[in-house]
Amino acid sequence: MTILYTLVGSVCALVFAFLLARYVLAQDSGTDTMREISLAVQKGARAYLSQQYRVVAMIFAALFLLLALLAYAFRLISPFVPFAFVTGGFFSGLAGYIGMTLATKANAKTAWAARKSLNSGLRVAFFTGTVMGMTVVGLGLLDLSLWYALLKLAFQLPDDQIPPIMITFGMGASTMALFARVGGGIFTKAADVGADLVGKVEAGIPEDDPRNPAVIADNVGDNVGDVAGMGADLYESYVGSIVATMALGVAAAHSSTRGLQAITMIQIPLAVAAIGVVLSILGTFFVQAKEDASQSVLLAALRKGVWFSTVGIAVASFLYIMFFPGLGRAYLGIWTAMMCGLVAGNVIAYFTEYYTSDTYKPTRQLADTTLTGPATVIIGGLAVGMKSTVIPVVTVAASILGSYFLAGGAYNPVRGLYGIGIAAVGMLSTLGITLATDAYGPVADNAGGIAEMAGLEAEVRTRTDALDSLGNTTAATGKGFAIGSAALTALALIAEYDQKIIEAAREVLPKMGGIYAEYARGFSGAFDSGLTNPYVVACLFVGAMLPFLFSALTMQAVGRAAGAMVQEVRRQFKADPGIMAGTSKPDYAACVGISTKGAQREMIAPALLAIFTPLVIGIFVGPVGVMASLAGALASGFVLAIMMANAGGAWDNAKKYIERGNHGGKKSEPHKAAVVGDTVGDPFKDTSGPALNILLKLMSMVSIVFVSATMVLNALFINLFR
Amino acid sequence: MTILYTLVGSVCALVFAFLLARYVLAQDSGTDTMREISLAVQKGARAYLSQQYRVVAMIFAALFLLLALLAYAFRLISPFVPFAFVTGGFFSGLAGYIGMTLATKANAKTAWAARKSLNSGLRVAFFTGTVMGMTVVGLGLLDLSLWYALLKLAFQLPDDQIPPIMITFGMGASTMALFARVGGGIFTKAADVGADLVGKVEAGIPEDDPRNPAVIADNVGDNVGDVAGMGADLYESYVGSIVATMALGVAAAHSSTRGLQAITMIQIPLAVAAIGVVLSILGTFFVQAKEDASQSVLLAALRKGVWFSTVGIAVASFLYIMFFPGLGRAYLGIWTAMMCGLVAGNVIAYFTEYYTSDTYKPTRQLADTTLTGPATVIIGGLAVGMKSTVIPVVTVAASILGSYFLAGGAYNPVRGLYGIGIAAVGMLSTLGITLATDAYGPVADNAGGIAEMAGLEAEVRTRTDALDSLGNTTAATGKGFAIGSAALTALALIAEYDQKIIEAAREVLPKMGGIYAEYARGFSGAFDSGLTNPYVVACLFVGAMLPFLFSALTMQAVGRAAGAMVQEVRRQFKADPGIMAGTSKPDYAACVGISTKGAQREMIAPALLAIFTPLVIGIFVGPVGVMASLAGALASGFVLAIMMANAGGAWDNAKKYIERGNHGGKKSEPHKAAVVGDTVGDPFKDTSGPALNILLKLMSMVSIVFVSATMVLNALFINLFR
Repeated sequence: MTILYTLVGSVCALVFAFLLARYVLAQDSGTDTMREISLAVQKGARAYLSQQYRVVAMIFAALFLLLALLAYAFRLISPFVPFAFVTGGFFSGLAGYIGMTLATKANAKTAWAARKSLNSGLRVAFFTGTVMGMTVVGLGLLDLSLWYALLKLAFQLPDDQIPPIMITFGMGASTMALFARVGGGIFTKAADVGADLVGKVEAGIPEDDPRNPAVIADNVGDNVGDVAGMGADLYESYVGSIVATMALGVAAAHSSTRGLQAITMIQIPLAVAAIGVVLSILGTFFVQAKEDASQSVLLAALRKGVWFSTVGIAVASFLYIMFFPGLGRAYLGIWTAMMCGLVAGNVIAYFTEYYTSDTYKPTRQLADTTLTGPATVIIGGLAVGMKSTVIPVVTVAASILGSYFLAGGAYNPVRGLYGIGIAAVGMLSTLGITLATDAYGPVADNAGGIAEMAGLEAEVRTRTDALDSLGNTTAATGKGFAIGSAALTALALIAEYDQKIIEAAREVLPKMGGIYAEYARGFSGAFDSGLTNPYVVACLFVGAMLPFLFSALTMQAVGRAAGAMVQEVRRQFKADPGIMAGTSKPDYAACVGISTKGAQREMIAPALLAIFTPLVIGIFVGPVGVMASLAGALASGFVLAIMMANAGGAWDNAKKYIERGNHGGKKSEPHKAAVVGDTVGDPFKDTSGPALNILLKLMSMVSIVFVSATMVLNALFINLFR
Repeated sequence: MTILYTLVGSVCALVFAFLLARYVLAQDSGTDTMREISLAVQKGARAYLSQQYRVVAMIFAALFLLLALLAYAFRLISPFVPFAFVTGGFFSGLAGYIGMTLATKANAKTAWAARKSLNSGLRVAFFTGTVMGMTVVGLGLLDLSLWYALLKLAFQLPDDQIPPIMITFGMGASTMALFARVGGGIFTKAADVGADLVGKVEAGIPEDDPRNPAVIADNVGDNVGDVAGMGADLYESYVGSIVATMALGVAAAHSSTRGLQAITMIQIPLAVAAIGVVLSILGTFFVQAKEDASQSVLLAALRKGVWFSTVGIAVASFLYIMFFPGLGRAYLGIWTAMMCGLVAGNVIAYFTEYYTSDTYKPTRQLADTTLTGPATVIIGGLAVGMKSTVIPVVTVAASILGSYFLAGGAYNPVRGLYGIGIAAVGMLSTLGITLATDAYGPVADNAGGIAEMAGLEAEVRTRTDALDSLGNTTAATGKGFAIGSAALTALALIAEYDQKIIEAAREVLPKMGGIYAEYARGFSGAFDSGLTNPYVVACLFVGAMLPFLFSALTMQAVGRAAGAMVQEVRRQFKADPGIMAGTSKPDYAACVGISTKGAQREMIAPALLAIFTPLVIGIFVGPVGVMASLAGALASGFVLAIMMANAGGAWDNAKKYIERGNHGGKKSEPHKAAVVGDTVGDPFKDTSGPALNILLKLMSMVSIVFVSATMVLNALFINLFR
C-alpha cells in the first residue's frame, strides 16, 4: 500500500517537473546574441558532462566487475548488488543531467524575462529550480519504490534481504555524486578563478565581459558544478538517508520486543518521503508575488513556500504515522524523532544564513576587515567559519540524543539508531522545495552573465543581481540541510555497519570454517568499540585526518586547473591583441577544454581515496578500525564541511556587500582584499566543502557493502602473523 | 633510589643551566644603542609578564578556592590537591620567566658576537636556548621528584594515592601554560601584524626599522610569546607526559597478573626522564663547529647533538630498565614502547621539516603560487598544511598500536595504555636538547632586529638571518615533538579518566548513598563508550568542534589586538611627521601597552573554554559524554594543530625563499603575496596551533581532577528528570 503511495507521489513530482519544464521552455530566449551565448554554454556543459560520464563509466565498470566477482564467484553478497550499484549511479547522474539541461536553456530566458520585471525573472528561474528539485525527489522516490517492488513482488525476497541491496543502490548514487561534485567543483572553480585572476585583476575588465576567453567556461562551470553537481549530490543525500534508515529498520524490527515488523520499519521512511514530495509540490504554489514586488517581498514569498511545506509535512506525517498499520504505540516516538530532524534542519539553516548573510553582524564585521588588507580578511573569514560550527554541531548532537531516546533507544538501542535515521529523512523531507529555492540561484547568476555579455540594459543586470543575491541567501539554507542530514545519515550508516559486522560474523564467516570461523567468533556478539580500545583511538585519528587530506587534494586540484586556465587566458590575450580591443573573438572552446581536462584528471585521486581507504583499513586493521575511522572522519569532516561552506559564503557576501558601495565600493583597496577572500572561499564552498558530505556517506556505504569481503581478507592477514 | 637519581639529574641540569647563563651574561652587549634597545625590550617584556601574572594569579586564586572547597568541605579530593595545582602553575611560569629573562639580555650579546663570526653568534644564541631547555627539564624533574618524595617519605602516602595529586600539579602547569601561550601568542602576533601592516605595507619601511613605533613591541612579543610562552608550554608537556604515565602506572600495577608493583610503574617514567636529561646535557657538547663554519656545517653540528642524545637515551634506558628492580621480563615491553615514542618523534620531526623547509618541494611549490597572487598562496598553504597531517597522524596511530601491544596490552589492557604513556615520555626524553635548538631561534631573530635598529654592518644582519633561518628549521623539529607528544599524552589522560570514572563509582559515590550510590552502579564496571552509544557520538561531534571554536576565538583575538595596534601606529605617524623623517623618536611604550592590554583581555575567554567545557558536559551529559568529547577534541584538534603549525611554517619559509631573491625578491608582487600568506600563518603557527596542544591536555586533566564532583552533580541533574 505504501509503495503505491510512494509511486503516486514520485509520479506527481515528475509530472509536475515536466509541466514546469514545458512552461520554461516555452519562454522567449531573447536576442540572437543571447541565443548564441546560451547555445555555447549548453554545448560546453554537454561536452563536459559526456566527457565526465565516459571517465566515470570506466570506474563504474571496474567496480561492477569487483561486485560481480564477490556476488557470483564468492557468493559473499546478493546477486542483485552489482545492478543496484549501477542503477544508483545512473539515476544520480540523470537527475543532475536533467536539471542542468534545463538550466542551461533557462538562463537566457530568465534574463529576457527579467527585462519585464523582477517577479517575471524570479518565476522563470524558480520554475527551473523547481524542475530540478522535483526531478531529484521524484526520481529518487521512483527508483527506490521500483527496486523495492521488484525485489519484494517480482523476486519475492524476504523483507530483511532488501535493504542491503538498496544500500548498494545508495553507494552507486554516492559514487556518481562524488565524481559530479568533485569534477564539477574543480571545473567551475578553475574557470572562475582563472577568469577572475587574469580578467578582473590583471586586465581590469569587468566580470562576465565577453572579451574574457574564460567567460563561457565560467558560465559552463556554474551549470556543471552548481547545478549538475548539486543535483547528483542531493539525489545521493535523499536516497542515502532513506536506504540507511530502511536498513536499520530491519535490525530494529529483529530486536523489537513489541512485535514490530521489518516491513513496517522499512516502509516508514518511504512514506515520510512521499508525504514530503506532495507537500513540497503544494508549497511551490505559495511562491507568488505581484509583478512589482521588491526583493524582500520575493524572499518572503520563497520563505512562505518552505514554511508551508514544513508545517504541512509535520501535520500530515503525524496523521499518517499514527494510523500506520503495525506500529501501535511506537508511532509517537517515530514521529517525534522525525520532528527532531525537521526542526534541527531549520535551526541549522537559520544560523547558516546568520553567519553568511550581510544583513547580520558576522559578515558585516568580516567586510570591515578588508580595511586592513587581504591577510586580515583571510584570518577573519576562517574565524567566522570556525565559529559558525558551534550551533550546527550542538544542534545535530541534540537531535541525535533526542531522536535516539524519543524513538525508544533506552529500551532498544537499535530502534534508537533507527530514530536517528528517521531524523535524517525528516530533515530532507522538504527537499523538493528547499532544493528548488537553492537551484534557482545559479540560473539567476548565469542569466546575469548573459545579460552582461549580450549588452542588455543595466536595469536587467540589477534585477538579475538581486535574484542572484536572493539565491545566495536561500542557497545557504540548502547547504544547512545538506550538511546536517549528511551527519545524521552517516551516523545511521555507521550504526548499520556495526550491525553488518555482527551479521557477517554470525552468518557468513562461520560457514567458511577454519581460521574464518575462529576469527568470526570475536565479532559475533557485541564487540568493543570503546574509547580505550587502541584500535579505536588509532583509527579515530586516521579517520579525523581523512577529510583534511581530501580537502587538500581537491583544493590543490582547483589550484592546478586554475593555473592552467590562467596560462591559457594570458596566452590568448598576448597572441591576439584584437581580443582586448573587442575586434576579434577569443577562443572560448579552448578554455572549456582546459577546465574539462583538468577536472577529469584531478577528480580521480580524491574519489579513489573515499572508496579504497575503508577497504585498506578493513583488511589490515579490521572492522573495529573501520568503524572508528568512519567515526573520526565524520566528527572532523562534519565540522570542517560547515567551516568551509560558511567561511566561503561569508567571504562571498562580504565582497558583494562592498560592491554595493560600502567601504569604497568596487575597485577600491578593500574590494581587492575582499576579492582575495572570495577567491579562497570559492573552492571551500563549492568544491571541498560540499564534497566532504558525500565522502562521509560513501565511505560508510563502501564499508557496509564490502563488510564480508574485508573481514575474510582481514582474517587471512591476521593469520599471516600467527 | 630512582628518586635520588632524578634529583641528581635535575640538579645537574639546573647547575649546567646556571653555568651557561653566567657565560652568556659575561658576553659584551655591544654599543650604547644596542644596550638601550635591549633594555627597552627587557623592560617591555617584564612589564608584560608581571601584568600577565597578575591576571593569572586571580584566576589561580579562584580555582584554588574551588579545589579547596572540594578538598576540605566535601572531601571529594585529596587535601594536597589545591597546593599541587598552585605549585604546578608557579613552576610552569617560572620556567618561562627564567628563559625569557636571559633571552632578552642575550639578544644584543648575540648580535655583537655575530660581528665576529657565524659560529660565535650561534654559540651565544644556542647557549641561551640551552639554558631554557635545561631549566624546563631540570625544574620539571625537580618539582616532580620533590612532590613525590614529600608525599611518599614525609607524609607516607601509599603509592597509589600519589599520582592523582601529581596530575593536579600537571593541571596547574597546563593552566599557566595555556595563559602564557594564548596571551603571549596574542601579544606577539598583534605586534607583529600591526608593525608589518603599517610599517612594511603602508609606510614602505623595512622590517625592524627603528622609525616603526611597534618595533619594540614586536621584539618584546618574540620574547613573551616564542620564549616565555614556549617555555611554559614545554614545561607543561614534559610534566604532563610524566604524571599521566605515573597515574596509569598505578592502574596497570593494580590489574597486573605478573605481580608488578605500583612503585615500579610510577618510577619508570621519572627514570626515563632523568636519563634523558643527562644525555641531553652530554649532547650539547657535540654542538661545536670551527670559527669559519658555514650554515650547513652548523646545522649538522646541531643535528649531531640531537642524534647523540637520542641514541644515548635508547641505549642507556635499555640498560637501566633491564636492571630495574621488580620489572622482571616486562622490561622489554616497556623499553620497546618507549622506543615507539622516540622513533615516532623523530619521524614526525623529519616530515615537519620536509613540509615547511624551502629546501624541499612543498614549500618551493608554495612559493610558486605567489606568481598568481595572494589568493592562490592562501589556498596553496592551506592545502600544504592539510596534506602534511597525513604522516604525523599515521605515525602517531602506528605508535599507539605499537606501544600498546608491545607493553602487553593484549593480555592486560591497562598496561597497554601505560605503554602509550611511556611512548610519550620517550618522545619527550630528548626535550633538554631539542628545546635548546628550538629556543635559540627567537634569540637569533631578536639579535637580527637589534642589529638592524642599531645600524650594525649589513654582514651582521646576514649572519643573524642565517642563524634565524637555521632556527626555523630546528623549530619545526621542536614543534613536531610537541604535537606528537601532546596526542599521546592526551590519550593517556583519557585512559586515566576512564579509570577514574570507575574508581569514583566504586569508592566515592557509594559512600554518599541514595541516588548517588544508585547512579554509581552503572559506572562501577566497564561501561559502554562504544561508537554506537548516542552519548558517545553526540559528544564526539561536540568535542571535534571545540578546537575549531578555540582557534576562532584566538584568531579573532589576534585580529582585534592587531587592529588596535594598526590604529596606534597610524596615529603616531600622523601626529608626528618627524617619526618618518627620523628626527623624533616614536612612542614605543604606547605600542607595548596596547599589545599588553589586548593580550590580557583576549586570553580569558579561550582559557575558560578549556576549563569549563568538560565540567559542563560532565554535569549535564555525564562522564561518558566527557570521555567522548575529549576523544573528539583530541582527534580533530591534533589534526588541526599540525595543519596550522605546518601551513604557518611553510608560508613563513616561502616568504623567506622569495626574499632571498627568487621570483623577483623583496618588494616584488610575488613577495607581497607571500607576505599575505606569512601574516595569515602567524597566528596559525604561533598562537592557535601550539595552544591547541595545551588545550587538549588541560581539558583531560580538568576532567580527571573534577571527576567525582561532576559525577555527583550529574547524578543530581539526572535525578531532576525522574
